[in-house]
Amino acid sequence: MSDKIGIGLLGLGTVGSGIIHILEHHKKELMAKTGAADVDIRRVLVRDLEKQRDGHVNRDLYTTRAEEVLEDPNIDLVVEVMGGVEEARQYIEKALKNRKHIVTANKDLMALHGDELLALADRQNCELLYEASVAGGIPILRSLTEGLASDRITKMIGIVNGTTNYMLTKMTQEELSYDEALQQAQELGFAESDPTADVEGLDAARKMVILARLGFYASVQLDEVHLKGMTAVTAEDIAFGQQLGYTLKLIGLAERNEEGVEVSVEPVFIPDSHPLASVHDEYNAVYVYGEAVGETMFYGPGAGSLPTATAVVSDVVSVIRQIRLGTAKAEVNLSADEETVLKKDEDIYAKYFIRLHAHDVAGAFKKITSVFTSNKVSFEKLIQLPLDSTDLAEVAMVTHETSRSSLEKISDDLASLDVVETVKSRYRVEGGEVDVPEQRDLALV
Amino acid sequence: MSDKIGIGLLGLGTVGSGIIHILEHHKKELMAKTGAADVDIRRVLVRDLEKQRDGHVNRDLYTTRAEEVLEDPNIDLVVEVMGGVEEARQYIEKALKNRKHIVTANKDLMALHGDELLALADRQNCELLYEASVAGGIPILRSLTEGLASDRITKMIGIVNGTTNYMLTKMTQEELSYDEALQQAQELGFAESDPTADVEGLDAARKMVILARLGFYASVQLDEVHLKGMTAVTAEDIAFGQQLGYTLKLIGLAERNEEGVEVSVEPVFIPDSHPLASVHDEYNAVYVYGEAVGETMFYGPGAGSLPTATAVVSDVVSVIRQIRLGTAKAEVNLSADEETVLKKDEDIYAKYFIRLHAHDVAGAFKKITSVFTSNKVSFEKLIQLPLDSTDLAEVAMVTHETSRSSLEKISDDLASLDVVETVKSRYRVEGGEVDVPEQRDLALV
Repeated sequence: MSDKIGIGLLGLGTVGSGIIHILEHHKKELMAKTGAADVDIRRVLVRDLEKQRDGHVNRDLYTTRAEEVLEDPNIDLVVEVMGGVEEARQYIEKALKNRKHIVTANKDLMALHGDELLALADRQNCELLYEASVAGGIPILRSLTEGLASDRITKMIGIVNGTTNYMLTKMTQEELSYDEALQQAQELGFAESDPTADVEGLDAARKMVILARLGFYASVQLDEVHLKGMTAVTAEDIAFGQQLGYTLKLIGLAERNEEGVEVSVEPVFIPDSHPLASVHDEYNAVYVYGEAVGETMFYGPGAGSLPTATAVVSDVVSVIRQIRLGTAKAEVNLSADEETVLKKDEDIYAKYFIRLHAHDVAGAFKKITSVFTSNKVSFEKLIQLPLDSTDLAEVAMVTHETSRSSLEKISDDLASLDVVETVKSRYRVEGGEVDVPEQRDLALV
Repeated sequence: MSDKIGIGLLGLGTVGSGIIHILEHHKKELMAKTGAADVDIRRVLVRDLEKQRDGHVNRDLYTTRAEEVLEDPNIDLVVEVMGGVEEARQYIEKALKNRKHIVTANKDLMALHGDELLALADRQNCELLYEASVAGGIPILRSLTEGLASDRITKMIGIVNGTTNYMLTKMTQEELSYDEALQQAQELGFAESDPTADVEGLDAARKMVILARLGFYASVQLDEVHLKGMTAVTAEDIAFGQQLGYTLKLIGLAERNEEGVEVSVEPVFIPDSHPLASVHDEYNAVYVYGEAVGETMFYGPGAGSLPTATAVVSDVVSVIRQIRLGTAKAEVNLSADEETVLKKDEDIYAKYFIRLHAHDVAGAFKKITSVFTSNKVSFEKLIQLPLDSTDLAEVAMVTHETSRSSLEKISDDLASLDVVETVKSRYRVEGGEVDVPEQRDLALV
């Protein structure tokens, strides 16, 4: 058991500098917590030796040659905060082959290549931790693996993308359109000039793949995530949901039962009174259902260099403890245990919100309800508003639980009715019942 | 370093049985996580040997003689879940003197005697962990000491008592009176027949003393907590706050800055849009401000035997790791570092909500505002409603930040005005600005 721990750092951007800052300012606590006699940064891979940087790390430690980190026998633990996928993967593989433990904040890498890298770490008897890769400042992964270690997680519902949550908050509170909200997010730096990965739900999907692995020990591939972004969300959908007592959020969901595992990312209506509905702006939160503990939620900043650096250092502390305990790779062994079965669409049950434009004629109500009856699905809520200066009525309803495949069928059946002009939108509903102010239960006459 | 860990259990109620259940069902994971070759329950102190109990622990392990747990050289770790203060304290002291590590779920004990027991543990080179003593199911203490280990916590605002949160939720959502809410809570088993410890804020104060110790390494005594219960809260206060965009919660607050530490428990108005405002019914949550990580929140069930047992087992895992790392008592050393200075009332700044009945006569507004002007405090919000069939008007206002001592002065000055009939109530306001729907900013004419 080694008492001196050598760290090699790949990347020295804002997160890397934050890590160095924390490691230096909390050295005493780190040593006390881990029982290590010394924790030292021994090499730092940078792209440019000459660039001026904040922080106090000795410039002699800088190198532009990755081998000097990956092959240095004095380095026990490699911290990867360089980002990108291909290069980072090669470096981590090489480090693992040289029996170095890894801490990474790289969500793209872990979502795409997590399984193979964890398997390699396992074979090499090394630890690979990645708390910082999901929801930066929220100690969610640590809580899943430590605090709730003796529980069984059955479901996680998360707001895990700050950009889209900022946009949806603005669309809800200030009734902005999608385009206006996107523009505002871009102006404030919350959205990239190409926002695809955020608004299409890809970023959230990557995080859910990682959460499913940590929470369920499940191996789900990115292309197995049921994915629907928020580009089609309208201010009308949001306003209509509000009349029924719901707030719209882009939700990453992971659930398991006897039939298997489901991972999805889509816009979902949440009751206003549910804690997730109060997660505003760029904040993130994950709502966790555990068999013993019941319902818990972890809330915090989803990103940011200091929160991410804090999470990386927590992982570093864990790895050092594992090294000293001789338990490194215990987590990995656990995660390889189960064969992951994905749930089929007919086994995925949820409530749904459906909004449509119907012709305001006698018998319309009967035809619409008969679609639900013939598909053996009832609905718990229905609201109708006349549309200005047309013969159309706007109808929104919330079904009882039904399978994803039934929903498709109902949606098609409704669209084919002569009294239905258009099925405008449909959204999954999660988070339990709405606290019902009775007047909301209007009936279609 | 020992590879076989012997556990002695004090108490076998629902929490104790839950612990045995978890330890048996997760033995493999526990051994993998801690690197221990064996984790075994070796003795269980019970009051009655003959009582039938659920669970599978070998009845030969039962004893009614505490020494058989406290003096057994094969026991490394004593888990105290018997409750009560005096007896539990004596047992823990004796166990520590015999150099056994301790895990306890006993909040009363830790709030009253935490300092001395931690000091004793320190001298004996033993670990004393008490995660389960605060907010059972929320991994808040673990997060404070582990996940946020490398951060500096500056403030914690918590809903840490399920009984009072249940009552306030009913008073808010269903407009129940205090008495009706209490009766309902008692009928449902959320409140004791003598609810004093809950409604007077004592239970919350105990938890805040523990949180301040964990988050700030501060030693605050129970009688140093600024304490105001919820017995004087009326449905009118709650309704008036709602009109200004606030929800009333019984809040435990701990804050530190250069001037010192403040710990309080009192009913506080929180903006409706703040995540704490959505913590309903018997749920608990703690909102934490960290210098690096920013704002995070931990939410979950505040009590319950399975959540508490889960938290106890997490502490057991930590202690076993510490034993094996040789770092036991590291946390305790840290907590003894700082000399705790309590903030004075003139250094405790907050916004306040004040509600009063004023005579609806010319010049009333001027006299009321002049009290604020002469005390150099401005207010950011004011609402007035006429009272039915009287010449009185109901006035509520929210001040800008002012010291606790100024507030006393303002309150006295207002009460002495001839145009003020009564100062009905005043509450602290926390959690930032209300998202302002403009029409709420009504002016007194």
